[in-house]
Amino acid sequence: MQEYQLLQLLERYGITVPKYRTFEIDQKFFFDRFPCVLKIDSPKVVHKSDVGGVRMGIHSNEELQRAKYEILSNLQKHGIFLDLEDKFIVEEEVRGEEFYIGGIFDPIFEEVLLFGKGGVLIEIEKDICYIDSEADAKEIVKSFKTTKISKIFPQFRGKEYKIEYVIDVVQKFQKLFSAEPIVEFDVNPLIYTEEGFVAVDVRMKQGIKSRFEARKRSEDIFHNEKVAIFGATDNPKKVGYALAKNALASKADIYFVNPKLKELFGKRVYHDIKELPPIDTAVIAIPSEYVLTTVEKLGQKGVKNIIVISAGFKESGNKEAEEKLTKLAKQYDLNILGPNCLGLYNAQKELNLTFAADTILPGSIALLSQSGAVLSALIDKAATYSIGFSHILSLGNMADFDFGDAIEALQNKSQCTSINIYAEGVRHGKKFLRRIRKSSKPIFVYKAGKTEAAKKAAFSHTGNMSGSYEMLAGLCHSAGAKIKHDIDELIFAPHYENYKEALIITNAGGPGTILTDILVQHGKKMYELTPKELKLLNKVLPPTWSKNNPVDIIGDATSERYRAALEILYKPQLLIFILVTPQFMTDGKNIAKLVEDRPNLIPIFFGSETFKPVFAYFQQHRILYFNDLENVANIL
Amino acid sequence: MQEYQLLQLLERYGITVPKYRTFEIDQKFFFDRFPCVLKIDSPKVVHKSDVGGVRMGIHSNEELQRAKYEILSNLQKHGIFLDLEDKFIVEEEVRGEEFYIGGIFDPIFEEVLLFGKGGVLIEIEKDICYIDSEADAKEIVKSFKTTKISKIFPQFRGKEYKIEYVIDVVQKFQKLFSAEPIVEFDVNPLIYTEEGFVAVDVRMKQGIKSRFEARKRSEDIFHNEKVAIFGATDNPKKVGYALAKNALASKADIYFVNPKLKELFGKRVYHDIKELPPIDTAVIAIPSEYVLTTVEKLGQKGVKNIIVISAGFKESGNKEAEEKLTKLAKQYDLNILGPNCLGLYNAQKELNLTFAADTILPGSIALLSQSGAVLSALIDKAATYSIGFSHILSLGNMADFDFGDAIEALQNKSQCTSINIYAEGVRHGKKFLRRIRKSSKPIFVYKAGKTEAAKKAAFSHTGNMSGSYEMLAGLCHSAGAKIKHDIDELIFAPHYENYKEALIITNAGGPGTILTDILVQHGKKMYELTPKELKLLNKVLPPTWSKNNPVDIIGDATSERYRAALEILYKPQLLIFILVTPQFMTDGKNIAKLVEDRPNLIPIFFGSETFKPVFAYFQQHRILYFNDLENVANIL
Repeated sequence: MQEYQLLQLLERYGITVPKYRTFEIDQKFFFDRFPCVLKIDSPKVVHKSDVGGVRMGIHSNEELQRAKYEILSNLQKHGIFLDLEDKFIVEEEVRGEEFYIGGIFDPIFEEVLLFGKGGVLIEIEKDICYIDSEADAKEIVKSFKTTKISKIFPQFRGKEYKIEYVIDVVQKFQKLFSAEPIVEFDVNPLIYTEEGFVAVDVRMKQGIKSRFEARKRSEDIFHNEKVAIFGATDNPKKVGYALAKNALASKADIYFVNPKLKELFGKRVYHDIKELPPIDTAVIAIPSEYVLTTVEKLGQKGVKNIIVISAGFKESGNKEAEEKLTKLAKQYDLNILGPNCLGLYNAQKELNLTFAADTILPGSIALLSQSGAVLSALIDKAATYSIGFSHILSLGNMADFDFGDAIEALQNKSQCTSINIYAEGVRHGKKFLRRIRKSSKPIFVYKAGKTEAAKKAAFSHTGNMSGSYEMLAGLCHSAGAKIKHDIDELIFAPHYENYKEALIITNAGGPGTILTDILVQHGKKMYELTPKELKLLNKVLPPTWSKNNPVDIIGDATSERYRAALEILYKPQLLIFILVTPQFMTDGKNIAKLVEDRPNLIPIFFGSETFKPVFAYFQQHRILYFNDLENVANIL
Repeated sequence: MQEYQLLQLLERYGITVPKYRTFEIDQKFFFDRFPCVLKIDSPKVVHKSDVGGVRMGIHSNEELQRAKYEILSNLQKHGIFLDLEDKFIVEEEVRGEEFYIGGIFDPIFEEVLLFGKGGVLIEIEKDICYIDSEADAKEIVKSFKTTKISKIFPQFRGKEYKIEYVIDVVQKFQKLFSAEPIVEFDVNPLIYTEEGFVAVDVRMKQGIKSRFEARKRSEDIFHNEKVAIFGATDNPKKVGYALAKNALASKADIYFVNPKLKELFGKRVYHDIKELPPIDTAVIAIPSEYVLTTVEKLGQKGVKNIIVISAGFKESGNKEAEEKLTKLAKQYDLNILGPNCLGLYNAQKELNLTFAADTILPGSIALLSQSGAVLSALIDKAATYSIGFSHILSLGNMADFDFGDAIEALQNKSQCTSINIYAEGVRHGKKFLRRIRKSSKPIFVYKAGKTEAAKKAAFSHTGNMSGSYEMLAGLCHSAGAKIKHDIDELIFAPHYENYKEALIITNAGGPGTILTDILVQHGKKMYELTPKELKLLNKVLPPTWSKNNPVDIIGDATSERYRAALEILYKPQLLIFILVTPQFMTDGKNIAKLVEDRPNLIPIFFGSETFKPVFAYFQQHRILYFNDLENVANIL
């Protein structure tokens, strides 16, 4: 498309462009708004500025004529000779702050817009945010607020900047981008004026957009009353053994299937699908070559939930088998979890359909993970800290059931209070964002694959392209998810998110300072001591105590002093850190005992050798503790 | 100073300013370079633009006259009426990329320059670096490289940008700022042109500069042959007991002093300084009211190294006593460490003059800390991991001996291979930077007090103002120190800094991906497997292994498979991570045993409950291990 056609396209969507006129190259130029800009508009010229195809600051029609000959001469120097199809555009020069809007058609997220600071330094400054083409006004603003340039709104150096103009221009480009066969565009600069944004320099690329299809699912993946385990075995070295053993403790009816076995854990083993009574859920842990036929038979039998534990699909180069699995899911209206996954856990049925080594406790976190190993590590950590789960889904290769489906499935589950996601990539981006937007439960996302080397690694093990970290993180954040930066936050965070104010009681000023930094940087307010509390503390603490939060009760503090301070200051709505460093008089174990069963008291024993008995005590009593400061950030 | 005087000042230091002329307000204006700018130059107007005191884009002398009346009218609207002392300046309009240079006289670092991107958005973009007024060309460039705008050098969009111009203009302003009685200045914009930088808009503030005096020290603080401990006691609840006990094991001669005691640990206790044989080092752990007289007597006796453990000085509001201590140090040419500190450790003499609870092992790290508690925590952690120290200095309130002195004292100590600093503030900034520059040993700095709340906390416990984090970190980085972001790095980092390439052997793709991210983000290269290694690995690993680094040996790997991969891949120059997630067949303890005594093998057992026996094994064998991924960053 030539520039004048682009300008017309923008005008059709109500986007303001500078006042302009087009001229044939042999026409006499005449314009009435100065200063103005003269540009060549020819398919032979892609980057106008690079070949001297633009002249700015023209103040009269005489200058305009001269500028034309200047440009013609510049072009000739670059070996560009114009013909009668080429045009010139004269445009009024629009002055104001330079912004940028652009768009890309991403293979995962489809139409995604970029918005932020414009100008020639854009690639260096990268002060840009990602905006989904389906984002509403509120979400647009939330995205925009992540840029630095947004800070000039609503007022900067005496000048007013209207956020409504941002919403308006982004919405117009959202419409244009979604409706037109455009796969990429750039407007730089997009100039902020008192009347709104004006799109000054526009570039667009046409192409074909291939979209994901969203499928309506008829069955709840957590409807697990009658479950059959294919590949259940008495060989303790095999996955089918652990699956069968873990499943046994459940309230659901469990059936084992293995053509070579008669009995397992005192239960009958079925030899074939046909023998089985009606079931709603099947777990498949058999050699990969038999998976497809088994899934097909299950589909024919009307079984809707199928968990494919078996590996040997896309991740090992067998793309074809994986595609067949996807087709079967569609054909028989199935929920297929996996393949290449750890399984499913459903607290309501006390149903552990994973081969994880640990006992999974019931709780309120729904944990979704693309990596089975990350899942097993998190389950293992959760076991140490008595953290329970309402649901666990190991999504593996995501041949069918994906994060978006999982978020939807969890909406009506009252036990689940937060949805915590470990993602390497996302399959159907728009669906994912829609489900995040509609979710009534908070969603936490950790995304792996930030660097190129890591993306390569991720690809080799689940066969999923990781995509751009910044894009995924930006879009999820604006849609309403919270991005996490430490993987352990997926099991710890939701417990402490809601505390607004923090209090530190410590025997050490330095570590108190560092912890204050960490708390404030993670959005916590430091609780302010009341005059009454100060008075009471003055009575029980040595005169050199800090008179402030962090409450530094001085290096020679023993448990008695900690107890006295805590008695005065304890409040259930405060997040209280009992911060202890090893001084030679510190009676760590007695201080540890102060923590008891109060979940808002977090012990930090900053040390190692001296505190070994303390750590053993906490582990034995299943109390969350820290032995350093920086990791506290995980729970904030 | 009025603008025309500023322009003259700049010209005296060789700094280019735009061609300009000054006019009295009743003079007829005439200028010969267009476009030009007209500005009011009056002490009544501080921010010219805010009151309409600047008119740009003037193309003729007629326009110039009109602009004058426009400005006069604008000023009147803001209630500003000119008189005959006021001037106008006409300046040629200089076009080019907008930079910024400024300077502040900081109470700690004295003259500090700021340099970076200029323009009206400067406060929002904050793309600025700090440059010491004593920084040389190389250091100037190192500072500048931390800004985004530096990326347009040496070339951007076909235009050349010369770094020599940056060095030149910064050096000229360094000279000006150091020589003139100026305490603050701003040049915005400082415009980059093909001939060099042009200072366009200049503002300066005059004032008095109070400077630190650097004192030449005659004695080495680590000259500790004969040591007396004042306040040595048999009361195990007192600091003097731990000090005496820790000191006893040393090769130095140790003398105890306590007027109320005859014998301690089978040694004579002296009652008074007079009784003592000649000593070189005194440790003081007596009530604060007796400290000053004791120090004075020691000074008179010729004792040069005095470690004041006692608290009760600036940190508890007793500023006067602290100032007296500083004076005594100067008067008697003493090295006074503290007050309010944990003490000193000197591996050469096996001399532990701290009251830390742990045994300190000899090693190669010199650890300097302003906080005694942080020091005791790090010593405690080091004990668990068998990390040793060549020297430890607890600097406390830094009434006399400070970080700069410590760095100098360590230069000729061959056992010390790195100087690791925990700082809350710095006393004499210029001296600190000079010593960093001259240091033959690598210096690592962790600075606490990043947020305002934390600065307040730091002030209350050592009485030191923390200052701006960004400034200290920026200046130290450019001078040659390495800034650390996790406090544990102060004991771990120097062991692993030098490994360039990393290898991961893992039973889990997802965690391998995350760890790859962390390694690459911290500057490690992922080792590339050779064709020969690939061939050998293909023979011993299952067909689905990753064929790449991270070497994913698949979830069902036992210790045998780890051993086989390690045999093929082990190289002493690689940093090798043995990354293990809990799968039900994982024999963790056997994998743990593979690590043995190879310091370049780092075990990461990503989990908790399952791996408890593994962690116990590592602790027992004093092997560094991790149970999560993010903390690995600490050692990189």
